[in-house]
Amino acid sequence: MNSFGKRFVFTTFGESHGKAIGCVVDGVPAGIEIDEAFIQSELDRRKPGQNAYATSRKEGDVVEILSGVFEGVSTGTPIAMVIFNTNQKSKDYTNIKDLFRPGHADYTYYHKYGIRDYRGGGRSSARETAARVAAGAIAKLMLRSLGIEIESGVAAIDGIEAQQLNFSAARESEIYALDPDIEARQKEAVLQAKNRHDSVGGVALVRIRNCPVGLGEPIYYKMDAVLADAMMSINAAKGVEIGEGMHAAALKGSENNDQITAEGFESNRSGGILGGITNGDEIDVKVYFKPTPSIFQKQRTVDIHGEEVTCELKGRHDPCVAIRGSIVAESMAALVVADMLLLNIGRRLSDLQKIYS
Amino acid sequence: MNSFGKRFVFTTFGESHGKAIGCVVDGVPAGIEIDEAFIQSELDRRKPGQNAYATSRKEGDVVEILSGVFEGVSTGTPIAMVIFNTNQKSKDYTNIKDLFRPGHADYTYYHKYGIRDYRGGGRSSARETAARVAAGAIAKLMLRSLGIEIESGVAAIDGIEAQQLNFSAARESEIYALDPDIEARQKEAVLQAKNRHDSVGGVALVRIRNCPVGLGEPIYYKMDAVLADAMMSINAAKGVEIGEGMHAAALKGSENNDQITAEGFESNRSGGILGGITNGDEIDVKVYFKPTPSIFQKQRTVDIHGEEVTCELKGRHDPCVAIRGSIVAESMAALVVADMLLLNIGRRLSDLQKIYS
Amino acid sequence: MNSFGKRFVFTTFGESHGKAIGCVVDGVPAGIEIDEAFIQSELDRRKPGQNAYATSRKEGDVVEILSGVFEGVSTGTPIAMVIFNTNQKSKDYTNIKDLFRPGHADYTYYHKYGIRDYRGGGRSSARETAARVAAGAIAKLMLRSLGIEIESGVAAIDGIEAQQLNFSAARESEIYALDPDIEARQKEAVLQAKNRHDSVGGVALVRIRNCPVGLGEPIYYKMDAVLADAMMSINAAKGVEIGEGMHAAALKGSENNDQITAEGFESNRSGGILGGITNGDEIDVKVYFKPTPSIFQKQRTVDIHGEEVTCELKGRHDPCVAIRGSIVAESMAALVVADMLLLNIGRRLSDLQKIYS
Amino acid sequence: MNSFGKRFVFTTFGESHGKAIGCVVDGVPAGIEIDEAFIQSELDRRKPGQNAYATSRKEGDVVEILSGVFEGVSTGTPIAMVIFNTNQKSKDYTNIKDLFRPGHADYTYYHKYGIRDYRGGGRSSARETAARVAAGAIAKLMLRSLGIEIESGVAAIDGIEAQQLNFSAARESEIYALDPDIEARQKEAVLQAKNRHDSVGGVALVRIRNCPVGLGEPIYYKMDAVLADAMMSINAAKGVEIGEGMHAAALKGSENNDQITAEGFESNRSGGILGGITNGDEIDVKVYFKPTPSIFQKQRTVDIHGEEVTCELKGRHDPCVAIRGSIVAESMAALVVADMLLLNIGRRLSDLQKIYS
Repeated sequence: MNSFGKRFVFTTFGESHGKAIGCVVDGVPAGIEIDEAFIQSELDRRKPGQNAYATSRKEGDVVEILSGVFEGVSTGTPIAMVIFNTNQKSKDYTNIKDLFRPGHADYTYYHKYGIRDYRGGGRSSARETAARVAAGAIAKLMLRSLGIEIESGVAAIDGIEAQQLNFSAARESEIYALDPDIEARQKEAVLQAKNRHDSVGGVALVRIRNCPVGLGEPIYYKMDAVLADAMMSINAAKGVEIGEGMHAAALKGSENNDQITAEGFESNRSGGILGGITNGDEIDVKVYFKPTPSIFQKQRTVDIHGEEVTCELKGRHDPCVAIRGSIVAESMAALVVADMLLLNIGRRLSDLQKIYS
Repeated sequence: MNSFGKRFVFTTFGESHGKAIGCVVDGVPAGIEIDEAFIQSELDRRKPGQNAYATSRKEGDVVEILSGVFEGVSTGTPIAMVIFNTNQKSKDYTNIKDLFRPGHADYTYYHKYGIRDYRGGGRSSARETAARVAAGAIAKLMLRSLGIEIESGVAAIDGIEAQQLNFSAARESEIYALDPDIEARQKEAVLQAKNRHDSVGGVALVRIRNCPVGLGEPIYYKMDAVLADAMMSINAAKGVEIGEGMHAAALKGSENNDQITAEGFESNRSGGILGGITNGDEIDVKVYFKPTPSIFQKQRTVDIHGEEVTCELKGRHDPCVAIRGSIVAESMAALVVADMLLLNIGRRLSDLQKIYS
Repeated sequence: MNSFGKRFVFTTFGESHGKAIGCVVDGVPAGIEIDEAFIQSELDRRKPGQNAYATSRKEGDVVEILSGVFEGVSTGTPIAMVIFNTNQKSKDYTNIKDLFRPGHADYTYYHKYGIRDYRGGGRSSARETAARVAAGAIAKLMLRSLGIEIESGVAAIDGIEAQQLNFSAARESEIYALDPDIEARQKEAVLQAKNRHDSVGGVALVRIRNCPVGLGEPIYYKMDAVLADAMMSINAAKGVEIGEGMHAAALKGSENNDQITAEGFESNRSGGILGGITNGDEIDVKVYFKPTPSIFQKQRTVDIHGEEVTCELKGRHDPCVAIRGSIVAESMAALVVADMLLLNIGRRLSDLQKIYS
Repeated sequence: MNSFGKRFVFTTFGESHGKAIGCVVDGVPAGIEIDEAFIQSELDRRKPGQNAYATSRKEGDVVEILSGVFEGVSTGTPIAMVIFNTNQKSKDYTNIKDLFRPGHADYTYYHKYGIRDYRGGGRSSARETAARVAAGAIAKLMLRSLGIEIESGVAAIDGIEAQQLNFSAARESEIYALDPDIEARQKEAVLQAKNRHDSVGGVALVRIRNCPVGLGEPIYYKMDAVLADAMMSINAAKGVEIGEGMHAAALKGSENNDQITAEGFESNRSGGILGGITNGDEIDVKVYFKPTPSIFQKQRTVDIHGEEVTCELKGRHDPCVAIRGSIVAESMAALVVADMLLLNIGRRLSDLQKIYS
């Protein structure tokens, strides 16, 4: 249950304050050039401690490849990667050892397993997502060989919504803002929340370009369903939409249908997916993140004995998880597309004939 | 790829205008009383042709159990169910044989497989969801034995939103409306769209009650992620949210966290799930449906040779898929919970000791 | 747990004396001509009641395709097939309702599930294998399009071993004997056992020809391991070997290694598989079947209350399950190869480039 | 495809001469005491370089746990373990860089992937089995808590067969011989082959004691089928049998059936499995290993350009892989049983009621 995917499968392991986190990526086709610097650069995009808008926990996040690559090229065997934890301050957590932080998974892990590694949330920490980004980097190297691109950015923070989608601006922005015109207001909202020991919610948007027509399995492994699964598996995600999304529910059919011309689809309200299968247009996925549950105000909670106590958190936390979450969402999208590319071949007898003749 | 679930697994088959549709439900524990009348009654709730707000295609939707039940009780072997198609009017579709209906899966199926059963959308038809409802009925019989309940209703149609959630009213309503006070307006919106040969979008809401604490696997088989996957796999779904959902992205942490008292959670903005695991509270899932793509206005499209043509549909279609879709969403929720109940046991050594000592 | 395969996946359902048995075959590539007469002819090879060497239970075993085929061609959607049971004599079983037949699954099913459909062994009956043969026929149609052939026959009965492998003779033989020179002795052994109300064991051999190099996944989905799994899943199988098999354990490395020349492998002791991956040579699999546990002599057993009783069976049974078992083994081999063909594509980046460029 | 199991799932990674090998064990119930010294001792049993009967490659095989254990106890999250490679002599392999060693996977890996890590066989090396033993040790710790035991030994070497099964003797023997009376002859056969630059085949036997009744899923995840799969996945395995095995194929039903008394089964020819499900008796599995393909005699082969060449191997190899293979077989058996224990719970409604009430 710590694996994702059917053909391009990755498994992650590790706790926030354990020895290491990491992943095993299985099903990677042989023959892909594995650019280690690229993998590291992806991790650096997600890395904490880089500016005032993220947690001050500084992690080197240095990734080490243990297997599956020979002379710089993937061999078809599993690629294991490990990131040793270096900057744990587990002492920050001794005061929450016996209580359940509101909005966190402490309560549910404890009641599920009867035991929990309370240090930094253990396995439920967003630190796990670094392993997803490492795996996602392998997926991106594969997609790149096929001309498929994935971009992302932050579409809203604290209800302040982007009016344009400028992915290059997002790439350069400290808060990955898609709209440079409102970036300052979004930054202000983050800092204000931080100063008040509070946090804010936000929305990430991922766009996939040049995806071949035909990806996604009908009925129960639809492209949109698996994207929804992937996105909702990211810490703090509470909603997902494709294309026009929620808004489509308030439209008429005559407004929402994308008519088709000889040049392609006239509009893209579908978000590039029809019947769960890609139609060749850009795929747009939006992920809605709740505000970080770790806030530094007094909160009411209970301890493991059921006694009511006051919870006062210490530690270092992102005031807005949607920011770094956008990189994770982008990585998950890459992983889903890689999986779908592999699943799709073999859908026709002629695919088999091309490969085996 | 026509299966769903890991332990309580169902597989569906069948095309809209083929001989039959059906499902095989595998992993059903032995010893559950299989009430055939209940299964039929569930199918009847989803059945088309019952009033002015749904398609006039009349299907008996009579379900027949082929295996897995002995003397009225499940035996632990797969339960196969079949529904023979009886009221096909395949001729309605000969005019769309060579063209792609806007907003439908025709284009993507054809480009994926190189062949499509064009009659009524073939496999991509919402008719497939009858098989989900049959499977869901088995899941509900299991949940019922454990005291878990699932309800659903329509929360919005054409942007007209429910202000209250009255599940008993929804059960009796012709459009499964959750709010009897706005039901008339919602009905009016459906009929108006129908008269204009158009369609409307809508929103379904599913609530799960009495779910034990601890269901859902951390990281990649989270309760919310799998619910999102399940819901997004339903025809025409474009967005999913849990609890406060999208709205949470515009809140502060201090507003969104559910504080905990000795009596339980003070509020339920999380929608009953923390860190992907159920916390014992009610689980709320909202599914946003686009308007039915089948409208009876002239639309622009291309044929299989890439030539631009005008598309004028005949046939019988729901003006608002969210209505019957709510029953499907409810069934999918039951199937997810059944799967999670089975997956969860064995999470602790003490579970094994209870069973094997 | 009633499904087999990862990409070419089939699920079977049904009990020996229930309404029907059947299967759903998922992952079948679109574009395969589905020759229904061929599927029926495969079932006829396995069909009981055809001569003195098999059970006298006569089943029409008429297969009906419910979905997945349009205008004679597979569409890529699941192919469901059903065989209605017509010649049940469930009364034969009322006397064994409360006791456990030695050598049968009665004891274990009852203790696992707390309930069992005792009529004809219910789900544990070899009747289930008819569904495998139907699924296998679909696999064979796919393999045929790629030039891959599968043959089988009986290599030994009651310890009387074939000295030659004549697959065409086996095809015509009433006991599928691979060696026409000893066929008479093998038949005699079967009849003698039958007359003494006893049964005999036997060995089936399956040969796969023209299998491409490279099928089988390293480590945990090896071609030989999956063949072993598939064969051992057949009722009454107690051993499996590949190529030289057991005998290899008594050889020296210098005797067992197949040396390689420019024309290919000099010998084929490996049975066409090295490191779990096919090497292009013929694949030979042998399956060892125990004697039919249903014998008509008095046996000692206990009833469901733990009381010792004498078991005297009635009913109709094969005196040697290896005979019809050889057809099932052949079908399972076809299903494994079909799955491996699909799994293998995508092993190299160049596969993806061939399909997506 | 580098994972095994459905509920207790392990994934291995790593190449013989890469940085490290390791595994991730997922699905381990929380609350198991993880005795690191025991895990290491299991690895030591498999470790090369300990005496004249095994390869002289000396590996420390020091295992390091990276995750999933907190304060000495499993937490329910994935347990990752890594073993860094320390004694690679990759230079030994430069001469085989471009040719295919007879009996090895070189030929098939190269043709499958178009690239191979030739150093020590890369991923196809038996070194991968150390990761299985580490995973198996976790499984054994779980089984031990439930009173289930697994033992193994060598039943035959070079055709010299054990006449008794003395598992305690096997544990102490340098060649894990089950029969101390013929151990000397078996040792002699190994040394003789080694001196002649040759190798010998052998047979390992695994016995599982105290396995609960009811493990194994009917039809396609039978206990015997999964054991066969697991065993056949071990390097050099060419045959598997359960209980009476191959020999059963030469018996009559009246000889082979295990009759049942109030005290249990009168005999155990079934090897503890009926209809794929455990019956509570001891489970016996035999694995037939071919002789090590690495021999130091001149052999004929081709290079990657198809040219015929002479192959003269250097390096360090076991003269009989069955010896250390028996430990691997034992580990695989433990992993299968752990998986089956988890899969089995939930087979009855009463299991769920016990856990959730």
